[in-house]
Amino acid sequence: MCRWIAYRGETIALEHYVTAPARSLVAQSLHALESTASTHGDGFGLGWYGDHPEPGLYREVRPAWSDDNLRYLCRHIRSHLFFAHVRSSTGTPITRPNCHPFACGRWLFMHNGMIGNWNRIRRRVEALIPDELYGSRIGTTDSEAVFLALLGAGLDRDPIGATARTLAAITEMTREEGRAEAMRFTAAVTNGKDLYAFRYAANDQANTLYYRAVGKDVVLVSEPLDEDRSDWQLVPPDHAVVARAGRAPEVVPFTVTRQVAAE
Amino acid sequence: MCRWIAYRGETIALEHYVTAPARSLVAQSLHALESTASTHGDGFGLGWYGDHPEPGLYREVRPAWSDDNLRYLCRHIRSHLFFAHVRSSTGTPITRPNCHPFACGRWLFMHNGMIGNWNRIRRRVEALIPDELYGSRIGTTDSEAVFLALLGAGLDRDPIGATARTLAAITEMTREEGRAEAMRFTAAVTNGKDLYAFRYAANDQANTLYYRAVGKDVVLVSEPLDEDRSDWQLVPPDHAVVARAGRAPEVVPFTVTRQVAAE
Amino acid sequence: MCRWIAYRGETIALEHYVTAPARSLVAQSLHALESTASTHGDGFGLGWYGDHPEPGLYREVRPAWSDDNLRYLCRHIRSHLFFAHVRSSTGTPITRPNCHPFACGRWLFMHNGMIGNWNRIRRRVEALIPDELYGSRIGTTDSEAVFLALLGAGLDRDPIGATARTLAAITEMTREEGRAEAMRFTAAVTNGKDLYAFRYAANDQANTLYYRAVGKDVVLVSEPLDEDRSDWQLVPPDHAVVARAGRAPEVVPFTVTRQVAAE
Amino acid sequence: MCRWIAYRGETIALEHYVTAPARSLVAQSLHALESTASTHGDGFGLGWYGDHPEPGLYREVRPAWSDDNLRYLCRHIRSHLFFAHVRSSTGTPITRPNCHPFACGRWLFMHNGMIGNWNRIRRRVEALIPDELYGSRIGTTDSEAVFLALLGAGLDRDPIGATARTLAAITEMTREEGRAEAMRFTAAVTNGKDLYAFRYAANDQANTLYYRAVGKDVVLVSEPLDEDRSDWQLVPPDHAVVARAGRAPEVVPFTVTRQVAAE
Repeated sequence: MCRWIAYRGETIALEHYVTAPARSLVAQSLHALESTASTHGDGFGLGWYGDHPEPGLYREVRPAWSDDNLRYLCRHIRSHLFFAHVRSSTGTPITRPNCHPFACGRWLFMHNGMIGNWNRIRRRVEALIPDELYGSRIGTTDSEAVFLALLGAGLDRDPIGATARTLAAITEMTREEGRAEAMRFTAAVTNGKDLYAFRYAANDQANTLYYRAVGKDVVLVSEPLDEDRSDWQLVPPDHAVVARAGRAPEVVPFTVTRQVAAE
Repeated sequence: MCRWIAYRGETIALEHYVTAPARSLVAQSLHALESTASTHGDGFGLGWYGDHPEPGLYREVRPAWSDDNLRYLCRHIRSHLFFAHVRSSTGTPITRPNCHPFACGRWLFMHNGMIGNWNRIRRRVEALIPDELYGSRIGTTDSEAVFLALLGAGLDRDPIGATARTLAAITEMTREEGRAEAMRFTAAVTNGKDLYAFRYAANDQANTLYYRAVGKDVVLVSEPLDEDRSDWQLVPPDHAVVARAGRAPEVVPFTVTRQVAAE
Repeated sequence: MCRWIAYRGETIALEHYVTAPARSLVAQSLHALESTASTHGDGFGLGWYGDHPEPGLYREVRPAWSDDNLRYLCRHIRSHLFFAHVRSSTGTPITRPNCHPFACGRWLFMHNGMIGNWNRIRRRVEALIPDELYGSRIGTTDSEAVFLALLGAGLDRDPIGATARTLAAITEMTREEGRAEAMRFTAAVTNGKDLYAFRYAANDQANTLYYRAVGKDVVLVSEPLDEDRSDWQLVPPDHAVVARAGRAPEVVPFTVTRQVAAE
Repeated sequence: MCRWIAYRGETIALEHYVTAPARSLVAQSLHALESTASTHGDGFGLGWYGDHPEPGLYREVRPAWSDDNLRYLCRHIRSHLFFAHVRSSTGTPITRPNCHPFACGRWLFMHNGMIGNWNRIRRRVEALIPDELYGSRIGTTDSEAVFLALLGAGLDRDPIGATARTLAAITEMTREEGRAEAMRFTAAVTNGKDLYAFRYAANDQANTLYYRAVGKDVVLVSEPLDEDRSDWQLVPPDHAVVARAGRAPEVVPFTVTRQVAAE
C-alpha cells in the first residue's frame, strides 16, 4: 500500500501539505495509520504543474523522510495542482521509473493499490497499452501499465468511461484463472486542468480515499493530514471525485461494469 | 556501448581484473579507448559464482570509478568464474535492474551492443520470452529481453544454436520496417560451468571482443586490460568463444542464419 | 537508535544471521521491537573478514529491507567474523561514510547510541582524534569520531582501558555545559581476531545488548533474532563482552571512571 | 576540477543555461573542454532563489547527464539568481553534503579548485570556522570548510575583504610545511542579492572563469556555454567579479595579501 496527496486550488508551496502538517505525507512515510504497511520507505515522488503545459517530476528511491532535496523542493516549488506519493512496494523493484506519479505528455497519474496475480496477467495488461504509448513504459509496475492502458482507452475524451472500461477488463483478467484475485485501485489522474480520483476494489476492501473541499479547492488524500479528522470526508467505495477546471469538486458513483465482452 | 570482462580460471580475487590493471575495467569506466563512448558511467555490475549454485550479483547505478563498495568487494570476493560490466546507456533508464550482468537461475548474461529501432520492435522481442520467464523481466533493457529470449530458445540444451536462432529472429525484426537497422551483439553467457561469448553484428561493425587464454583459463574483454596489448587476441566478427567446463577455450565460427522461416 | 549484529565463530554465510531468521537484522530494519525507533531505514552496512587482513565493507544509504545487493552478498559472503548494522539516524546526514560499520586498517567498529549535545561538543570529541588518524575521518557522525578517538587512545594495546578512558572523557564533555546530557554507547569493535562489545550509558538507560554463546562461538545483537528469546542472554549495563581469539567469550564489568583529570 | 555556472538577471527557467546550450553545464559534465578532468560525474547540485529568502537546493550523487529529475527541475524552476555545479572529486567522498553549492542561511557558495595538502591542514582550516557555524559543517570537503570560514570572517559585512583574508590565511597554511603546495580558488558566493566571483591561485595556474554581461544581467561560467566563444570574457587571475543588487557587474582586482600576521 502507498500513501498519496492530490491538491488543486490556489497556488501554494507544496510544503503546506507534503511536509508541514502533523500527519503530513512525509510523516506518513515513516508511520501511517490507515495502511496495512506502517512504513512507506520504498521511494517517493512529486508531480506538479507550473507555467509549462507538461508537469514537473521529482522521483527518488530513498525514503521521503530523510531526503533533504524533498524538503527544499517542497518549500520552493509552488503549484495550483500537484501530486505527491510515498511508496510501499508490493514486489516490483525500487527504481525511480517505478515511483509514482507517472507522467505522459500533459498527464499525471498515481495509484495506491495492487493487481492480484500480477506476474501471471502482466502481459495481458501490457497488451492494453497501444503501440504508440509502449515506448513510454519506462518502468515495470502494474500502476504504470494501468496508466498507459487508461490513456489508450481514451482518458482524454472520457476519463470516467476509459477508467471504468480498463478496470473492468483487468478485473476480468484477475478472475480468469479459476479463482478471484483481489484488485484494489485508489488512484488520481489529471491533465493539468481537470482532476479525477477513484476508489474501487474487486474481491477486497477498497483502499481509503478522503477529501477536503473549500469552494473550488480540493485536497484528496489516502488518510487525513491532521490529528483532527473532522474536516475530512471519506469517499465511499465505487465512487469517484471529479474536479473539473473552474468547477467545484463532486463525488459521483463510479461503476465498473463486468460485462466486458459486450463492450 | 559498454565495456565488460568475463573470467574463468583459477579462483582469484576479482580485483586482479576489475580494479588493479592499468587499463582495468574501472579505469575503462572513466576513459575507454575502443568504445564510441569514452565514458561508461551509467551504472555497473558484478556477477560471480562461489559455493552456491546460483551466482551472486552486485549492481549499482553510480559510476564504477567512485564506488568504494566495489573496491572492497573486488578485494574480498574470490571466484573461478565471474562477469563485470560498466554501462553506457543507449537510452533505457539508469536503474539497478537495467545494469548488467543479468541473472536467472544459474545463468548469468551480459551484453555490449544495441538493437536498432528498439522502441518499435521491443514488444516483438519481449514476445520471444516464454510466459514462465516473463516474471523474471524486472528491468526494461533490450539486453535483458534478449537474455530471457535466449533462455526460452533453449540456452541450456544448445547455447550456440539458441543464440543463433534468437539473433536471426531479432535481426529479421530490425529489417522489417523497410530498411535495415543496425544490430550489435557482443555478449557473454554462462551457467556457472560453461562459458560462451559471441561477437556478431548486422548492418554495422561488430563491437570488439578480445581474449587471453592460458591452459584452461580464459579472460574475455571488450578491450585489453594492459598497455601492452600483445597478449590479447581479437575474436573475429561472426565468431564465438566456447569454454566448456574442464576444457580449453576454442574460437569457433558463429553463423546467424537469416532464413528464420525455415527453422 | 540502531540495530546491529556481531558474529564470531565458524565460517558461515552472512545470510544465516542477517537475512534468514524470523527476527533477522533485515526484518528489524523494517520493524524493531526493542528500539525507540521502530524503523531503521537510514542506511545500513556490512563489515567482514576473509583472507585479507583488512575487512571488507558494503555500506549503502537505502534501507536494508529492499536492497537486492544485500541479499546476494549475504548469501555469497562467508566469514568467521562479521558485523552488520541498520541505521536510524539521530540527525547526521544519510551518506555511505556515515553508515556503520566503520573501518580503519584492520579494525571495524559499529555503534548503537548517541552523544547528547553532539553539535556543541563535536569539536572537542574530534580533538581526541590524533592527527595521523584525522584523514580517516571521511564522515561526520559522532560514532566515527568516537571510533577514531578509541584508536588514538590505544585500542590496539588496551581495548578495554582505551574505551573506558575515551568514554570517561566524552561523558565529562556532555556534562560541562551545566547540565548532564544523555550519552549511550552500545558498541562492538574488533581487529579481525579479538572481538569486544560494550554496554554503557550516562544519564540514561543503556541500549540493550544480548549475546548467545556456544563454545567459542558468539553472536552479539541489539535484540534477539528469534521469536523464542530463551537462548539469548542480556548483557547488564556497565558490562563488556570479551571474545579473544581462540577463547570462549566472557562477560566482564566495564567501569567508566569519571576522574579523567587524574588519568 | 569542477565546472559551474552562476546566473543573475531576469527570472528565467534554469534550463536555458544548465541543460539547453550546446556546451551546457550538463554537456560539460560528460565532456568538458577546459578542465584537467574531462568527465565531471561525481555528483552535481543546483541552488536558486525564489520567494523564500533562503535558497533552494537540489544535490545528487549521480552524474548530471543521466538525472531525469534535473531535467524536470531545470524546466520548471525559474529564478533570477541561481548556481549550478558538476563535480569531479579531488578525493573526498561522493555524498550529497559534499556536492556544491553549499547553503548556510541566505548564503550560497560553490567552488572549483583545490587546497594542496588538504589532509594535513584540514584541521587548521576547520579551526577557522566559528563555533556557532560548526554545526553547519555537514560534509567533509575543503570547499565547505572554506565557505564556513568565509562566513566567520565577515562575508556579510565585507565579502571581498573576508575572502582575501581567509585565502591569505589558508595560503599560508599550505606553505608552512616547508614547501609551497598549490591552491586554486575559482568560486562564487551570494546572499541572494549581491553576487561575487573570484579567480585566484597560489603556486599554480588559476582555474578559468568567464563572464558575459548584458546590462545588469551576468552569467559567470567555468567555460563558455556556446561553440561561439566571442561573447565570453575571460576574467584575469587575481580578479573578482562584483555584481551588487541593482547594479551592473564589475571586474575588479582581487589581491590576497600574504602578511596575515599583520592583519
